[in-house]
Amino acid sequence: MYNFKNDYAEGVHPHVLQKIIETNDTQELGYGEDSYSIKAKNILREQLQQEDAVIFFTSGGTQANLLVISHLLRPHEAAISAKTGHIFANETGAIEATGHRVITVDSTDGKLYPHQLEQVLAEYSLRPHVVKPRLVYISNSTEIGGIYSFSELDALHRFCLEHELLLFMDGARLGHALTSPFNDLTLPQIANRCDVFYIGGTKNGAMLGEAIVFSTPSLAIDFDYALKQKGALLAKGRFLGLQFLGLFESGLYFDLATHANRMALRMAQSFEELGFSFLNPPATNQTFPILPNNLIHELSKNYSFYTWKTIDAEHSAIRLITSWATPEEVVDQFIAAISSKHICP
Amino acid sequence: MYNFKNDYAEGVHPHVLQKIIETNDTQELGYGEDSYSIKAKNILREQLQQEDAVIFFTSGGTQANLLVISHLLRPHEAAISAKTGHIFANETGAIEATGHRVITVDSTDGKLYPHQLEQVLAEYSLRPHVVKPRLVYISNSTEIGGIYSFSELDALHRFCLEHELLLFMDGARLGHALTSPFNDLTLPQIANRCDVFYIGGTKNGAMLGEAIVFSTPSLAIDFDYALKQKGALLAKGRFLGLQFLGLFESGLYFDLATHANRMALRMAQSFEELGFSFLNPPATNQTFPILPNNLIHELSKNYSFYTWKTIDAEHSAIRLITSWATPEEVVDQFIAAISSKHICP
Amino acid sequence: MYNFKNDYAEGVHPHVLQKIIETNDTQELGYGEDSYSIKAKNILREQLQQEDAVIFFTSGGTQANLLVISHLLRPHEAAISAKTGHIFANETGAIEATGHRVITVDSTDGKLYPHQLEQVLAEYSLRPHVVKPRLVYISNSTEIGGIYSFSELDALHRFCLEHELLLFMDGARLGHALTSPFNDLTLPQIANRCDVFYIGGTKNGAMLGEAIVFSTPSLAIDFDYALKQKGALLAKGRFLGLQFLGLFESGLYFDLATHANRMALRMAQSFEELGFSFLNPPATNQTFPILPNNLIHELSKNYSFYTWKTIDAEHSAIRLITSWATPEEVVDQFIAAISSKHICP
Amino acid sequence: MYNFKNDYAEGVHPHVLQKIIETNDTQELGYGEDSYSIKAKNILREQLQQEDAVIFFTSGGTQANLLVISHLLRPHEAAISAKTGHIFANETGAIEATGHRVITVDSTDGKLYPHQLEQVLAEYSLRPHVVKPRLVYISNSTEIGGIYSFSELDALHRFCLEHELLLFMDGARLGHALTSPFNDLTLPQIANRCDVFYIGGTKNGAMLGEAIVFSTPSLAIDFDYALKQKGALLAKGRFLGLQFLGLFESGLYFDLATHANRMALRMAQSFEELGFSFLNPPATNQTFPILPNNLIHELSKNYSFYTWKTIDAEHSAIRLITSWATPEEVVDQFIAAISSKHICP
Repeated sequence: MYNFKNDYAEGVHPHVLQKIIETNDTQELGYGEDSYSIKAKNILREQLQQEDAVIFFTSGGTQANLLVISHLLRPHEAAISAKTGHIFANETGAIEATGHRVITVDSTDGKLYPHQLEQVLAEYSLRPHVVKPRLVYISNSTEIGGIYSFSELDALHRFCLEHELLLFMDGARLGHALTSPFNDLTLPQIANRCDVFYIGGTKNGAMLGEAIVFSTPSLAIDFDYALKQKGALLAKGRFLGLQFLGLFESGLYFDLATHANRMALRMAQSFEELGFSFLNPPATNQTFPILPNNLIHELSKNYSFYTWKTIDAEHSAIRLITSWATPEEVVDQFIAAISSKHICP
Repeated sequence: MYNFKNDYAEGVHPHVLQKIIETNDTQELGYGEDSYSIKAKNILREQLQQEDAVIFFTSGGTQANLLVISHLLRPHEAAISAKTGHIFANETGAIEATGHRVITVDSTDGKLYPHQLEQVLAEYSLRPHVVKPRLVYISNSTEIGGIYSFSELDALHRFCLEHELLLFMDGARLGHALTSPFNDLTLPQIANRCDVFYIGGTKNGAMLGEAIVFSTPSLAIDFDYALKQKGALLAKGRFLGLQFLGLFESGLYFDLATHANRMALRMAQSFEELGFSFLNPPATNQTFPILPNNLIHELSKNYSFYTWKTIDAEHSAIRLITSWATPEEVVDQFIAAISSKHICP
Repeated sequence: MYNFKNDYAEGVHPHVLQKIIETNDTQELGYGEDSYSIKAKNILREQLQQEDAVIFFTSGGTQANLLVISHLLRPHEAAISAKTGHIFANETGAIEATGHRVITVDSTDGKLYPHQLEQVLAEYSLRPHVVKPRLVYISNSTEIGGIYSFSELDALHRFCLEHELLLFMDGARLGHALTSPFNDLTLPQIANRCDVFYIGGTKNGAMLGEAIVFSTPSLAIDFDYALKQKGALLAKGRFLGLQFLGLFESGLYFDLATHANRMALRMAQSFEELGFSFLNPPATNQTFPILPNNLIHELSKNYSFYTWKTIDAEHSAIRLITSWATPEEVVDQFIAAISSKHICP
Repeated sequence: MYNFKNDYAEGVHPHVLQKIIETNDTQELGYGEDSYSIKAKNILREQLQQEDAVIFFTSGGTQANLLVISHLLRPHEAAISAKTGHIFANETGAIEATGHRVITVDSTDGKLYPHQLEQVLAEYSLRPHVVKPRLVYISNSTEIGGIYSFSELDALHRFCLEHELLLFMDGARLGHALTSPFNDLTLPQIANRCDVFYIGGTKNGAMLGEAIVFSTPSLAIDFDYALKQKGALLAKGRFLGLQFLGLFESGLYFDLATHANRMALRMAQSFEELGFSFLNPPATNQTFPILPNNLIHELSKNYSFYTWKTIDAEHSAIRLITSWATPEEVVDQFIAAISSKHICP
């Protein structure tokens, strides 16, 4: 039984583990002031081509989201998200729990576009009877596997500038976005266009850890207090720094994501060749093929995955997620399995 | 220029004012422990036919909503509301500011039905990654002037019981609902079917004041703390008690709402006779006729009202609100005005 | 039985009531945009000698405190208050409920001084493990009847400027402070030294109502949202505006407080002449004489008041509060009563 | 330079690391449903002798504290803590940020006793103008190194039962408390007397991780939502489970704490033999010797530690913390150093 349900079923990448083993005997300062965290942040700043970016490490994505959003918004301000956005769909009201509405946009592809934001601003104009939209939350790659192009991100950035909105990118799967064969965005371009974003480690080789980047440094003022107040400041912060060091000092992060994407897209291609369609065009390590229910039933005997959405009486979309650890052989076997089933789309 | 924009453009009903004048020279206990508040609560309990209902007076509707909802929900729990519900559409995120999501239901008539709640429960089932729906918020009359029938409320009540949901009715315009010619609900029936509801004074003759009724007394435990903590406990609570005394000791509350409804429905009837349609069937003191834009323009010279919604290039729906204070003559003149304009729907 | 327990046992001053009666038949805009509120704010700005002061009316003191403090603080920031401060001692954790610590200073006289603030800053310096002190909350008159002198307020103001602290004065009894025979402060001086303060109506002739004054206008930005979100924006805001109009258009506010003070200080003088001492030097309408318990027992047969603090086995301090409505004859009788008891201090 | 500043300057204990290495290649369920977490919880329940204890793993102490307290309290309820308690002194207002006051008790030894709680209840009795004390927060060992005896904990437990208070023990250093030579408490006794407590991993051999134990299972209902909402639910929860497995499957946890205590108490004994006194009697791995400032200056050349408190012009108390990793030789050298300085107390 192989698990395609998510990208956190695996352990930690051996190279990252090695960093931990090697450095385990030293004493280090606590609370993120250790030498490894400092070094990892320097490497990230270099790769972002932003000397003054302010970086913090934290344990997970929900934590990063609630930390950033509650830090940036005043009590009457709100975040805007696609309805599929993680902060709206999967985080138990974490943002509302800090006092802020998440304004949702119905989105077919999991992405936000300026014309949708325009409409939100129009709907939320009857001051002071409505909250004030202030932050735009996007995910790259999205919760349904898609990615933002350079021109899409740039358009959002310009819209936000013009309307005094902050742009925040959830990068829990940023590695997968940036290494997608369809991607035309670079890390420095993202850093120049988002006020804040984070680079996800948990889903790409780390045990745990996300790197929050404030590319607008003034927004980072007093964020250290926020980390501590929300229970996100690890005493042994070295273990977060070490992992980002291991992932970024020689490009491992991008190699791992490339592998995950390649595994997913090989499987997607097979489905396509067999005539199946998708909920959303395959681009990264999450794909959503639409399959006959009996094929789904067959596959579920050897593979675990989520059945995502009912399409019609006979068909459903499933979600398949690969990771840095997905073996090529498993993918070969999976492809053989679907091919051999001789089932028409 | 006559104002049909809302039902709080007026002063206080003379009889209510008289209560204040008559009792002004006495000393009374503060914080709602005065003799008038006690008497007013007794009268309400009698009219509700619930001896053990627990009643609190508060200043306004947003305050009542946030007090009740934040008191009843635990941090991970959420309220369900129609998208047009006041707590979602008009209260500046007051509920979210207390930490709770408002789950919305797209509703054409501003009301909630069991099948919609069923769907919400299905969408919010992937515990613990989603909030837990716990309270159903309805308005009667609704924000677009409609009312709940006995069977509709009863069905909601039974659904809530079955699914461990609390039922809360926003009665900012409860008087108008109960005196609608289309109404078949009674106050005691509401008290028996809602866990909590409130009876709005502000929009029906009072200066300010809503009476929150916990018909499930156990839910009221410690609500006195909530009132104080949220800044809702008036030092001179007597002025709230006095107004409900004035409104309820001899049926004035229902007389006033009856008048407001009658004024609105007379205007609505004229529109109907002239062949105009409505956004929502007229039932109470808020009506939404769909009119040609040039008629709207003409009317706006002598009457102020909100243009509610664009229907097509030539037509819009407007909102007309009447109150206990709307003079019959103004309605006569308004009807004469629309009739004389000779404009086809 | 006469009630000296508090200054909100009374009704509304007849002149204020008259304003309500006179204007009752007009239609006015809602939510504080009525003509009376606008006029009342203009009069206040004139008396404050601050053309750009931004003013909002709200219902009560706890509401004003939580509105201002939650509006001004970021999540990791805290307010500093004397331990006797209303926000710490009497408001059911209203400030904490908005997410902020109230840092307390042990104070014998209910006031704050720069050296105490200095110490708070030293204690709260281990960033980011402690909250960041950001706002200084003072009450004038204090919760135990004292007042700030010009030089005391000025020293606080300069300390706050120097240390990037905001200065906020709770003026629930500001009238009584400003009309104390011991006062040397003026309204304009207060406006120039406090970033925000409020002028209390509830305890000095109004039914309800406090006027929040942002004398630093930039701090008022978006406060309209805060009012609505916290349930403090009255639909019929005219009733707040009218009361401040009645109190301030011809100096009534100060006349009423002067009377209340005079009544309290007459009683205090009698206690002094009989050799009794006080918990705090009498200065305004709240006094705290230290009396033998048997005298307290005697007095409590005809007068109600709080026994404030046990001093020793035989003595306690009581709290006596007078108001604009306290009749001179009651004070005469009270003085006669204590004189006739022939009880030694 | 050796670091005695804290007990999180070290890496992870090799045995715990070994567990991670050994299991790294398997796929596991996410969000704490992995087989290691399940096994670790079973082992803990066995050692607690509570079959129905409900256990959750989380990353750190501040997180555990805010999760538990915000889960257990209703909005108007408060926690009681010693002024030295971590939730009051070191967590950036994390509890207040969830809406609750921390009521403090001045405590000379960092512990709470029933007579102090009695006094808090008396001070917070003027309902509804004050918050309602509902949860008692204690730390064992305390923030200044002391421990609770069986009879002390039992007395607190009985007091809490009688007054409907919940008892919550912060066990960030519970291992050190239970292995102190002065301890007479057992894990099962703690589980029987506290409603909730946690067992700290971070400061005793783990990378990160605290095990929250609800020994009153009904209090744990819906805590899974809380974990997710506050950003505390790790996607790869296996890494928390594995560490507790490593620490508890064969008693390592207690061995490590025993070592840390022994190192601290050896140093403490030397100070005692030289005639120095302590801020608090040494009992666990944190000690607070009072030393002449010139000796402190000398020691600081080779050892880092916090100067905790000024005692007089010539003396200060320092804080020395040892850990499972403190080498015996370093302690030998430290003892030699202080002995050789020939400085009188």
